Amino acid sequence: MRRVYINRERLWETLMAMGEIGALPKGGSGRLALSDLDIEGRNRFIEWSQAAGLTIHHDAIGNLFARREGRNNQLPPILLGSHLDTQPEGGKYDGVYGVLAALEVVRTLNDLEITTEHPLEIAVWTNEEGARFSPAMLGSEVFTGALPLSEGLAAKDRNGVTVEEELKRHQIEADLPLQRPITAYFEAHIEQGPILEAKECEIGVVTGGQSIIWLDIILEGVSLHAGTVPMSLRRDPLLTFAACVQRLEERIEADEQGKFTIGELSIQAPSRNTIPGAIEFTLDIRHPDDERVLQLKRDFIHLIEQEAQRREVEVVIKERWHSPAQPFNEKMVEAVQEASDQLGYKSLALISGAGHDAINLAKYAPTTMIFIPCVEGISHNELEKIYPSDAERGANVLLHALLNYERSLL
Amino acid sequence: MRRVYINRERLWETLMAMGEIGALPKGGSGRLALSDLDIEGRNRFIEWSQAAGLTIHHDAIGNLFARREGRNNQLPPILLGSHLDTQPEGGKYDGVYGVLAALEVVRTLNDLEITTEHPLEIAVWTNEEGARFSPAMLGSEVFTGALPLSEGLAAKDRNGVTVEEELKRHQIEADLPLQRPITAYFEAHIEQGPILEAKECEIGVVTGGQSIIWLDIILEGVSLHAGTVPMSLRRDPLLTFAACVQRLEERIEADEQGKFTIGELSIQAPSRNTIPGAIEFTLDIRHPDDERVLQLKRDFIHLIEQEAQRREVEVVIKERWHSPAQPFNEKMVEAVQEASDQLGYKSLALISGAGHDAINLAKYAPTTMIFIPCVEGISHNELEKIYPSDAERGANVLLHALLNYERSLL
Repeated sequence: MRRVYINRERLWETLMAMGEIGALPKGGSGRLALSDLDIEGRNRFIEWSQAAGLTIHHDAIGNLFARREGRNNQLPPILLGSHLDTQPEGGKYDGVYGVLAALEVVRTLNDLEITTEHPLEIAVWTNEEGARFSPAMLGSEVFTGALPLSEGLAAKDRNGVTVEEELKRHQIEADLPLQRPITAYFEAHIEQGPILEAKECEIGVVTGGQSIIWLDIILEGVSLHAGTVPMSLRRDPLLTFAACVQRLEERIEADEQGKFTIGELSIQAPSRNTIPGAIEFTLDIRHPDDERVLQLKRDFIHLIEQEAQRREVEVVIKERWHSPAQPFNEKMVEAVQEASDQLGYKSLALISGAGHDAINLAKYAPTTMIFIPCVEGISHNELEKIYPSDAERGANVLLHALLNYERSLL
Repeated sequence: MRRVYINRERLWETLMAMGEIGALPKGGSGRLALSDLDIEGRNRFIEWSQAAGLTIHHDAIGNLFARREGRNNQLPPILLGSHLDTQPEGGKYDGVYGVLAALEVVRTLNDLEITTEHPLEIAVWTNEEGARFSPAMLGSEVFTGALPLSEGLAAKDRNGVTVEEELKRHQIEADLPLQRPITAYFEAHIEQGPILEAKECEIGVVTGGQSIIWLDIILEGVSLHAGTVPMSLRRDPLLTFAACVQRLEERIEADEQGKFTIGELSIQAPSRNTIPGAIEFTLDIRHPDDERVLQLKRDFIHLIEQEAQRREVEVVIKERWHSPAQPFNEKMVEAVQEASDQLGYKSLALISGAGHDAINLAKYAPTTMIFIPCVEGISHNELEKIYPSDAERGANVLLHALLNYERSLL
């Protein structure tokens, strides 16, 4: 088969044109889910889609589907997509790249007059970011049935405005059911991490989502005067914390794929000249492997309890959330790997560290993702940046992975 | 000379009677400086003083002096005292003990018909706690001239009420000048720390106040997604903090008298699933010796900078305050030691870890302090507790130290 390529300039111009809507001073975009600017972004996407011969559809939670018919339209569609909403001060590429790379794939198929066996749909999921409505990835969760429609519609923003009210205000009406059959879902996305760049790889062949555990931890010692208590008589929860963290760091070194993050920490009644009485912090633990994330959790709790006991500090640990690992579809992962190899790109198999609509979809239908590098791993930030050559490679892989996968089904 | 003793029951009853004013549910007292309750406490003290034959005087910042004439009233007075104001939810003994132990000493001198050569004055300093007006120890600082009267009078509470307004409202009028000559100042106080109890000592012979340095430290790394960045590629300021604290702990172990406290710490834009971008924390460093507190500071800064460099994290360190060590008067310290030995008490020489009016007075006139144990070192807390036997011993030492010191002057 002859090699076909997407059009890099067209893709990049389309990305830049979308970035103009809700453009921010430092080069980012601000299009909160279902805001006027988000709808303006969707409308621009709809114009492009219609110009490419696609038909526009919605489901009851406002997910948008731009459909290109296949040779056999009785088959459930293959979906390609991501989201167009952003963080309040987001970048131009998070989500947007996946939608517009899919559009570029469709445009290329049009140029080459290729018709796929399955119908194709570009999916734009509602409220992926979670920056306006909670939970994040709300649209894809309602689509797959994991979140009841009523709960999704009732989600409120800070001003008490619901998703339902916004869908009504923007006259978004469903013509497609939720939980309808789909053949597969491909999502291209910026990595939002530094691994591809650090390893000088061009394509991330994503094998799944990792396992995540969230703990809340309280350390309680004794609050005393900073001036009057010798170090040896203190029961200082913050010094205990520091010692615990050191031990967690030593432990995690034994496992290259494990991660932990302490993103929040607060001291009870903080005062410069008072030994803290109690502190509370969060612990986010991740690992691609379910067994090993549980082992990390057990080891971490043991280390913290041991250190706290040694220092006569009380510990309370609560588990807040556990999301098991979610592997992607093996045949689709192979199709992505094969596409990257065929195109001569340097690829790396990796897991998705962040949450994505694809993690929801993977529980429902064959799903996989393609990552492209982003500069210094910076994301959720106006300074988010990708290179046109990486954008091009990702869309080429999306195109060929789609063709490879479809061929494997026939 | 025959040994004379104070009256333990009378002292304890007086302490309990003062504790009734502003009594709180868990056994503490709340008498914020110059509040109605503080004035009620002062008035009860004035009644007791007048009943003991003392005359009542004030200076322009509202410090209260209850005077007992001596044999030679041309001599500057010897002051004994502390403060009657408390933290919002304070204990019954912090400050109060020093004032009422002095009253008990005077009552005992009356009982035994002993007249000292110098006039004696029981001093009640205004706003020691700093819980209502800033700075703490305001009254003694204005008395010694270290703080201008105008600044002391202009100090405002949270509601904008000034010290001057409160003095006027309570009709407290000065009949004594500020910065008048005094012969010496003795202050008895609860330790507010756990050392005497831990070492099973009955009396603390306080040799001075320690040196204090306050630093503000910022560590700045890179805020990235908790899920996407391997541990080895992170520049996490909170992990850096933990490693630094471990190294400070190792360093401080080499110096039994050194102390450090991190009382405040905040993460910039904290989020459970985001690697912190920057953190800020305070560092309180104390040592009885000026040279060694400076050495600790230098070593700490070096360790922090070294660790931060290793982890590619930026450091900004600002020095906020440095209070040099303040030794007490040697002859007075000896007089306290001698008194404790004469009485057969087990004593320990120690430094004052906390700030006290005596630290201000020591810069102005011969000064020393006497500490008594407080249970578990708990203070600034309703649960603050002392034993009647310790209260008795402290007042006996105050009486005999006064007599010993006066004898040494003649």
